[in-house]
Parts: sequence; structure tokens; C-alpha cells
Amino acid sequence: MSWLPIAADSPFSIANIPFGIISTESDKTHRPAIAIGDHALDLKAFAARGGFKPSKTITESEDVFSQTTLNSFAHLGQSFHREVREYLQSIFRDDTPHPQVLKDNESLRESALLPLSGVTNHMPMAIGDYTDFYASTNHAYNVGVLFRGPENALQPNYKHLPVAYHGRASSVVVSGTPIRRPWGQILRDPKAEPKVPALAPCERLDLELEMGMFVCRPNDLGKPVPVDEAEQHIFGYVLMNDWSARDIQAWEYVPLGPFTSKNLGTSISPWVVLADAAIPKTTGLPNENELLPYLKEKKTANFLDIHLEVDLITASGNKKTITKTNSKNLLWSWPQMIAHHTITGCNLQPGDLFGSGTISGSEPGTEGCLLEQTKGGKATVTVADGEERKFLKDGDSIVIRGWAGEDGARIGFGEVSGMIEAALPLF
Amino acid sequence: MSWLPIAADSPFSIANIPFGIISTESDKTHRPAIAIGDHALDLKAFAARGGFKPSKTITESEDVFSQTTLNSFAHLGQSFHREVREYLQSIFRDDTPHPQVLKDNESLRESALLPLSGVTNHMPMAIGDYTDFYASTNHAYNVGVLFRGPENALQPNYKHLPVAYHGRASSVVVSGTPIRRPWGQILRDPKAEPKVPALAPCERLDLELEMGMFVCRPNDLGKPVPVDEAEQHIFGYVLMNDWSARDIQAWEYVPLGPFTSKNLGTSISPWVVLADAAIPKTTGLPNENELLPYLKEKKTANFLDIHLEVDLITASGNKKTITKTNSKNLLWSWPQMIAHHTITGCNLQPGDLFGSGTISGSEPGTEGCLLEQTKGGKATVTVADGEERKFLKDGDSIVIRGWAGEDGARIGFGEVSGMIEAALPLF
Repeated sequence: MSWLPIAADSPFSIANIPFGIISTESDKTHRPAIAIGDHALDLKAFAARGGFKPSKTITESEDVFSQTTLNSFAHLGQSFHREVREYLQSIFRDDTPHPQVLKDNESLRESALLPLSGVTNHMPMAIGDYTDFYASTNHAYNVGVLFRGPENALQPNYKHLPVAYHGRASSVVVSGTPIRRPWGQILRDPKAEPKVPALAPCERLDLELEMGMFVCRPNDLGKPVPVDEAEQHIFGYVLMNDWSARDIQAWEYVPLGPFTSKNLGTSISPWVVLADAAIPKTTGLPNENELLPYLKEKKTANFLDIHLEVDLITASGNKKTITKTNSKNLLWSWPQMIAHHTITGCNLQPGDLFGSGTISGSEPGTEGCLLEQTKGGKATVTVADGEERKFLKDGDSIVIRGWAGEDGARIGFGEVSGMIEAALPLF
Repeated sequence: MSWLPIAADSPFSIANIPFGIISTESDKTHRPAIAIGDHALDLKAFAARGGFKPSKTITESEDVFSQTTLNSFAHLGQSFHREVREYLQSIFRDDTPHPQVLKDNESLRESALLPLSGVTNHMPMAIGDYTDFYASTNHAYNVGVLFRGPENALQPNYKHLPVAYHGRASSVVVSGTPIRRPWGQILRDPKAEPKVPALAPCERLDLELEMGMFVCRPNDLGKPVPVDEAEQHIFGYVLMNDWSARDIQAWEYVPLGPFTSKNLGTSISPWVVLADAAIPKTTGLPNENELLPYLKEKKTANFLDIHLEVDLITASGNKKTITKTNSKNLLWSWPQMIAHHTITGCNLQPGDLFGSGTISGSEPGTEGCLLEQTKGGKATVTVADGEERKFLKDGDSIVIRGWAGEDGARIGFGEVSGMIEAALPLF
């Protein structure tokens, strides 16, 4: 289908065309690119050398491809994203109508079509605000049991509104960034009285498998977004690992929610899969409640159908896929999250990031965090060669992968990875 | 003391020199200014016309005064802020060593020294992240009683760590911006079963009297800020009104904290009083706990001593000062909040905003929100002419003022105001 050789199982098929920000050894400037097969197409170089010339619409706004983030590109809206994505697909097709642009242009191929192994990825967006939802019923129930017991596991509001909290935007980092084990306040014995916390490096460091969504279209303060228009506010999706210090979280989270336990870092995959890429959709988790009108979508089956996997790799190189699940394990769709986020008038901005919350299936081995898999540290996860884990140890790496679609037309995210570094001495 | 006439009770005495962002009818460009008496000194015009020429240090970096926010100025650090503030004080002193700069320069006075009544204020900083603390024990106890009863009013962690949650940065607005009454999910009868919320305009709209603090010095992800160095990360302070939809909050806030109930708008005063302005300091609220080392300050009495007042003004013009209190009513100082915010490694950035949480004294009439004053809507606050309030009605305005120091040398904030607009029809 493409004149560029692309492996059948590549996440970056010609059906995908995800956008990111790259730099190279020879040019440290951060600049937009797409991923295709084993290559990145440097859009700054491509635009500068007339790559978009056949499209007047795109060339008129091609300065967005010389920015250091994708925010300006995102802000141009979905019809522009579709124009660019479809144009780039046409350029890479075997039967491209514009062979002179790249296929038969060795000089531009050499300067703009770069092996992925030679590019460094950076944060794709400057994030204004980051909001983390809690939309997987299975996860919310499992964690609720551990934190508050089975009777209060799901709060009465849970199936009426997409529960969420504001996260920390500054500590969102791109895949590959090491994560430092944090110090924090820990109440080691919750039953002892009086309750006196210790200051110590986190003893229950965990991952959280999530999907992330970036906003493209803004709304004004005071103007809620109708749920059936919300999809137009979506720029695209990434994989996310919302690292969590469980012991710090359990002590600090009442009454205002998680705070320092989530500030240590949140990792995202570098390539934003656009809303325009036709990720298959399906139904989400059941909700027996009659929804309030602002959350009722005309579309049913509006949940992304993405296969997700989590690998745990220890410092000694042992590796296990600890989670296999699917992004459809959510009670609320992205449009529902947008509608709820804005119902009181909150203004969203291009570059805002939403997290789905930890995605868990209902079977063993489908849970999106160690807290659930080890039932709060009571069980262990076997890695290999006798190595076991309750929570993450120094030197452990977590790699999350996700993809939809068949071989040859995969719409994949690549991966989001991060390694745990030992705590530093405090001051 | 100054050649410029300044009223003795002006919040903007020569001892103050607060910084903000202004525009004028004739020049819509957002640009930095200081407030002094009834005037603003346009720093962009002042710098362009050589106003900083006597100071080599300042002229070398004076491009920060042609930016549209104070972030670049803040980023230059406290020693630079001191240099600029002291230089500007010297320019306005009767015995200024540089009379030719402004005092005797009628042309520059006319172009750069503008009546405050003729300038429009804008957001002083581009806010990266906004974190709202909960540092006034009196408020936390009063609200805790209403939400969870007297036994669980203060959670076990409350006096061990500065409780906080991430707020929404995009909906922070400058004084004078109207606040739209939000729609949201409300559980009208919390005792009925099953619990089924309604979608309605907020019926319990409230103010929250807070102090805000802007960060100037960044810290790297993974590097906590020692409490005794934390003061150097403070750019300055503003007054804040963190508007709150109490009915929406009560239903949504478990288990992850307030979300849409706080997204409708947070108002700040336009002039940032620099950390360098010597606001008097005193002791805060008592804490019988032994603090963990990272929260122990060498300085005691590190709490700002600022007199605070709240006026409620109805649509018919009736007005009452409903709150008189002091910013010292906090359990945690700003350096302690910074030390705790970063203990797990969270990176702060220039322009980040911290809120103190609602500031309440312990006596009637000192509480910083209506929820407390009306005991959750059971009592009423009398305004005048038979007008009473449990919560805010459409057309009500809230004006918060704050100042420290004696007449003639007041360090004041001016005010932060906002009027409630009626809810719009939903879609």
C-alpha cells in the first residue's frame, strides 16, 4: 500500500499517521513530525522544502509545523487535521498523486524522512491543565474496597457523573523519562493511635495504565460543551502511566483527593494518535442509571477499542507482561468526560490533557495497576527466575503498549516507558 | 515622602510597589506596570524612554517589561525584583537621586504615569498550575462539621501535612470578571434512597476568602525544596476569591476531591505584592504536633499579618462587610506549603499559583465564606433594608480588600471583586 517498506505489525501503519515532537543529534530544535513505519517525517523540514505545496489549505497554515509543540496545529481544528493527515497518507501511498514530493525526491527523503531510532521524542503538547478521571468501574471498585471496604467501594455519585480530579500538569513527562522514587509522608500502621506518619521513601510505588486525551478546540468560561458536540474538541490520544505512591496517597487523600502521591511524574507516549484516525469503537461498561440529559450521547458504542498491554522489566532483565486489557473498560466515554468537565462552565484549552483513570478489566491479569493485582500488597506478582513484586523496586521499568486494527493497518501508539530510580538522600 | 501625591490610606504607598499587567484605551497591548497611589506607572513605556538607564543591572534585562505577563520578570528572581522595586521607590521619593528620570520629566510623566481609573487590569501571570491548600484550621473544622459531622471534621492527617488539591488554572480570572452561576449535579435530599441527583443551576453559590501566592523560582522534577529555602521561590501575593458551588461540591467530592464545583471561576486581585515588600509577619494557628523535619522552619512567626475584609453588595446596592479577619489564621506558612508540595519531587514553575484555602478566624463575623457564616444555609446573613442571604443571589457582588501597615506606608492589595450573573439556559 505504501512505497515505504512498513512492517505488517508496525503500530505506525499508513492508516495511522500520529503526530509528535522530535529533535535529532544534528538539529536540537524541537519540531513536529509524524511516525510512519520505522521512520519519522520531519514536518518542519518537509514544509520548508515545499512538501505541502500541492495543498493550498495546508501551506497557508504551515507555520504550525515550525512550532516547538503541537498546540498551534491542534488549535486549527479537526477539519485541518483531517486535511493534513489525508494529504500525508496520499504522499506515502504506492499510487501517490504527487510522486515528485517525496517518493521520487531522494534529497527530501534524506533530509526529512528520518529513522525513528535516530530521533528523540519530546512532549507533544504544552499542557495547560491536566485532569485525571476515574472512569473504569472495575478499577474504582477494586481500589475502593482496599481504601474504604466493599460497602463504600463505589461512592453513590460514581455511576451518575464521571468522577475526576485536577492533576498536576508540570510533572507530565514524555516516555523514557526516568521516575525518581519519592519521599513522602507515610502512615505505616493505620490502626495505631495516635496516627503519626513517618517521612520515608515511598514503599508502595505503583503504575497506572491509562489512556490520555488531548483537547484541540477551546470553549469559553461559562459555556458548557454539549455532549454530542464534544467529540470535535478532541485532538487525539496517547498512552499514559500515572505513577502513584500508594502509601502516601492513602494517608493524604482525605478529604480533598490525591496530591503529592501523584505529583512525582505522569508519563505519556510521544505520538498523538489523532481523533481523525479511525480507531474502532465499541460499547463501554454497563450503567444501570438513567443519565442526566447533559451526559446522554446520541451515539452509543462510543468507546475506543484498543488492546493494551503492560510489561514489567526488572533491573536484572526479567520481563513479564503483567496486564492485558482493553481501553473499552470504561463507564464514561471521552465526550461524556468533556461534557461533565464543562457543565459548570470550565474553559478547556488546546493542549489540555485528560486521563481516563486506571483501566482494568474484570479478570485476573487485566488489572491496570499493582495495587489491584496484589490486592493491596497481600499477594505477589511473579516476574521470572524467582523474582516477585508487590510494588515497584528501584531499577524496574514499566512499558505500556497499545494498538487497534489488523496487521498491515494497525493504529498503534508505540509505547510509554519509564524506569524507577532510587530515592535521593533528602537535602 | 513622595513628590507624587499619595493618600495616606492608599493601599499603594511608596512602601508597596506592587506589579501588574495593564492596558489602556489608546494602547490595548498588555504590559507590565506598578501601582503607586492613584496611578499606574507603565513599565514598558518607562523602560522604552530610558527610565531604567541609571541602573545597568535593570536595563540589561528590561525586555521583561515588554512582555504581556509578569512571568519573565518573576523568573529573574528575588534579587532582581528587589533591585527594580528599590529603584522605583527611589524614583518616586521626594529626594530622588534621579529627578531627571520622572519627577522633572513632564513628558515621561504624561506618557507613562497613568491615572489608575484609566487603566484596565489583566491577569498578571500566565498560570502553569494552580494548587489550592486548606490551611486555615478554623475553616477546615467548620466545613468538616457540615460535610462529615464533628467527629470527622478534621481528618487525622490535617495537622501533620498541609492538605491541598490541584485546582483549575484556566478558570482563574482577574478581578472584575463576572462569574456565571453554573449548572451542575445536585443531590437535593442527601437522605433519600436511592440517591438521584438533579441537573440545575447552583443553589448554594459561595465565595471563599483566600490569599494567593505566585511562584518565581522553579525547581526540577525529583528535587524537593528545603523549607528554609522555600521563601526564595515566592514571587508575591494576591487576594483571591475561590468561588464555590457548595451543593455541587457536596455531591461530587468523594473520593477524589472537589472538581466541577470549583471550575466555574477563581478571581484574583490584579496587583502582585512582591515577597520583597516587607509585609509584617506574626505567628499562625497553633499545632500541637511534632512536625516532620521537612516541615520544620527555622523561622517562627512566618505568617503574613494582613487585615482582610469582605463586602457583599446586592443588586439593589445594599452593602455589608460580612467578614473581617486576618491572613495569619493559617496552620501552615507559605514556605511549609512549598516544602510539602515538592516533597515527592513535584516541579514548580514561575507563574504557578498557590491558594491558602479559605481563611477564617474563630469568632462570628470572621469566617471567610457564607457556608460557615450561615452554618450550611441554616442561618442567614443580614445585609440591609431587610435583604438577607444564605448563599449568593444573581446580581450580588463580592469585594475583598486586604492591607498591612500603617497609614502613609500601607502595603495593600486593592481589591478583588466579582459579580454573579444569572445562569444561562443550558444549550
